[in-house]
Amino acid sequence: MAKAKNIKVPKRFKFAVAKGNIKYSGRTDMGLICSEVEATAAGVFTTNRVRASNVELNKQKLRSGKGQAVIVNSGNANACTGEQGIKDTVEMSEMTAKLLGIRPARTFVCSTGVIGAPMPMSKVRKGIKDLTENPGKHSVNDVAKAIMTTDKFPKVTYRHIIIGGKKVTVTACTKGAGMIDPNMATMLCFIITDAAVESKTLKTMLKEVTDETFNTVTVDGDMSTSDTVLIFANGLAGNKPITAKSNSYKNFKKTLNDICYELAEMMVKDGEGATKVVEIEVKGAKTKADAKKAADSIANSLLVKTAIYGSDANWGRIIAAVGYSGIPFNAEKVNIWFDNVQVVKNSVSTNSDSRANKILRKKKIKILIDLHSGKSSAKALTCDLTEEYIKINSEYRT
Amino acid sequence: MAKAKNIKVPKRFKFAVAKGNIKYSGRTDMGLICSEVEATAAGVFTTNRVRASNVELNKQKLRSGKGQAVIVNSGNANACTGEQGIKDTVEMSEMTAKLLGIRPARTFVCSTGVIGAPMPMSKVRKGIKDLTENPGKHSVNDVAKAIMTTDKFPKVTYRHIIIGGKKVTVTACTKGAGMIDPNMATMLCFIITDAAVESKTLKTMLKEVTDETFNTVTVDGDMSTSDTVLIFANGLAGNKPITAKSNSYKNFKKTLNDICYELAEMMVKDGEGATKVVEIEVKGAKTKADAKKAADSIANSLLVKTAIYGSDANWGRIIAAVGYSGIPFNAEKVNIWFDNVQVVKNSVSTNSDSRANKILRKKKIKILIDLHSGKSSAKALTCDLTEEYIKINSEYRT
Repeated sequence: MAKAKNIKVPKRFKFAVAKGNIKYSGRTDMGLICSEVEATAAGVFTTNRVRASNVELNKQKLRSGKGQAVIVNSGNANACTGEQGIKDTVEMSEMTAKLLGIRPARTFVCSTGVIGAPMPMSKVRKGIKDLTENPGKHSVNDVAKAIMTTDKFPKVTYRHIIIGGKKVTVTACTKGAGMIDPNMATMLCFIITDAAVESKTLKTMLKEVTDETFNTVTVDGDMSTSDTVLIFANGLAGNKPITAKSNSYKNFKKTLNDICYELAEMMVKDGEGATKVVEIEVKGAKTKADAKKAADSIANSLLVKTAIYGSDANWGRIIAAVGYSGIPFNAEKVNIWFDNVQVVKNSVSTNSDSRANKILRKKKIKILIDLHSGKSSAKALTCDLTEEYIKINSEYRT
Repeated sequence: MAKAKNIKVPKRFKFAVAKGNIKYSGRTDMGLICSEVEATAAGVFTTNRVRASNVELNKQKLRSGKGQAVIVNSGNANACTGEQGIKDTVEMSEMTAKLLGIRPARTFVCSTGVIGAPMPMSKVRKGIKDLTENPGKHSVNDVAKAIMTTDKFPKVTYRHIIIGGKKVTVTACTKGAGMIDPNMATMLCFIITDAAVESKTLKTMLKEVTDETFNTVTVDGDMSTSDTVLIFANGLAGNKPITAKSNSYKNFKKTLNDICYELAEMMVKDGEGATKVVEIEVKGAKTKADAKKAADSIANSLLVKTAIYGSDANWGRIIAAVGYSGIPFNAEKVNIWFDNVQVVKNSVSTNSDSRANKILRKKKIKILIDLHSGKSSAKALTCDLTEEYIKINSEYRT
């Protein structure tokens, strides 16, 4: 993990933050990321049927495959705000674009915060003026800080790679883990690179990478109305545009995957009240979808998560969670490991619980479940469930 | 709710309890319910693919539609115990039947407790001797106590009704709410009546009643390996056997439903760490299945449950939970009430949150969500999620 202060950024991307006083005071709550030139752009959005209006508008704009700037605020999600909410999103986009001298169709808006409260537009307008006055006066790390809600630390990282002899930088920042917050919800991730990437390739790659990284994360099983992953590739590194057939395709995709997985792990580590990060891998399922369903069922089980918190190698809860996930498997052939300690063989205890309990005292744990019913596997990243989670989420708004 | 000490029981049913020392000491942990004559019997069982061997054996025996006795223990679920577990269940059934002088095929075994530990059969055998020595020396309330695990109070109730001029008694006891316990899991319910009910009618009715009552309950979304509802109808009230065409069908079914709903509410009230009982009703869904999916999604949302704990009328979490349930609905037409206070109209706030917060301070709350997308409705019964739940479930086994 790169130290926040040493984060490198791709060519000709600029950053600004502002104190909008939207909900929080005494801290930044608005951020701007923009490229000096139009970039190839792609996005992945929440599958929640209740979507914030800005999510809908961002999706529409991405049909062009182009983007140049994104303005983001914390404190108010501008979701369930009806017609007015749509108007406000449009105004935020148009005002930002105008002041930056770019096209509104290339200017994206992301909002995270309380659902159902109208956007305080007079504050927002003032914030947009501040942001656009001198883009470049702040860093990507400042943006990562401005979008934090209940996050305890900013999440940002980068990689350098060589593509066709050119040095390419990929940088990304993110916030949140699952429903971070009452209504606030929201995982946001902004990825920027100076690589040149062909539009359709970028779109497909981002979807695949998101599935393997952010979509394996579950903190509480809730899904926000605003989850967004956006990528801008401005091409200024000067490489030949990457396509699915390029030699550099695999390398670039792996880099993107590494960055996103690193950020996903940071999100889980920062899960509300979490004390442990847990990677759950289900293998031997009949299909990939089955494996994912079982992994998610385990990762979302309150009983599994509380047992991990209590350092109790309670594999009965794991096997029960696979059972009620509804996937087909041979219930008499299940093997389970905590790290390298096998606790279950053919669905029967190996009497290794006390050794496994010791492993559960670690801060990072891997649980492997082999169903012996097929050849597919999938992972889920989760954290333990603690009293602190309850405290945060029962006291948030009151 | 009938007081425990005044519980009436149907004709010619007998009860016994014993201290088996299976896991708990200083308390009863084994129980027996038996009818002096063979009864019509039906059952509903866990849909978890990982099922305890006794669940499988009970299902097989129920093909005859007959039953006479059930022996039950707490402290060990006899699940994930392989071949030996099956042998032990068979032995428990055969020994009980032999000592009672009835058929093993009419003798059911239910076990609730830790998964994966072998049944301590020498203790169990001693317990069975105690139970069968003098069935009738204890009460149904004693059985309700013996099957408790983390339950804080025994759950038992009854009703008298007149069927075809005959006085009929229906009595039931239950334990647990969702995955009560590490591996222990398990909701168990035993219903006994002296009504005469035709076999197929009893089976269908029990399934329908269970769907409307116990299956609306969710405490933590986990589903046990042993959940069981058993009914014995010994016919000694002397009524003409009830069929789907009987005049008395509706009345008997309603009674069964009332009893099961009362017990379901008790289970939720006793949910681990719960301070509030919440009935969630989703109406205006396209199909019954959609309504149920949405209601369960809300009822299982950790964010909804913690908000209720914190008396925060956080309807954004509710609307988000409907959104990610995956059902089709018009996301701009949602109305939400907390009791009689409407907090959301057409998916936008009515600015009544502070009035709704007061309602959430009550011990029993009703939340109504109207999706305006169809004519189907469904309910879910749940409780709030508290620090105490985490404490109970992280400390249980260690």
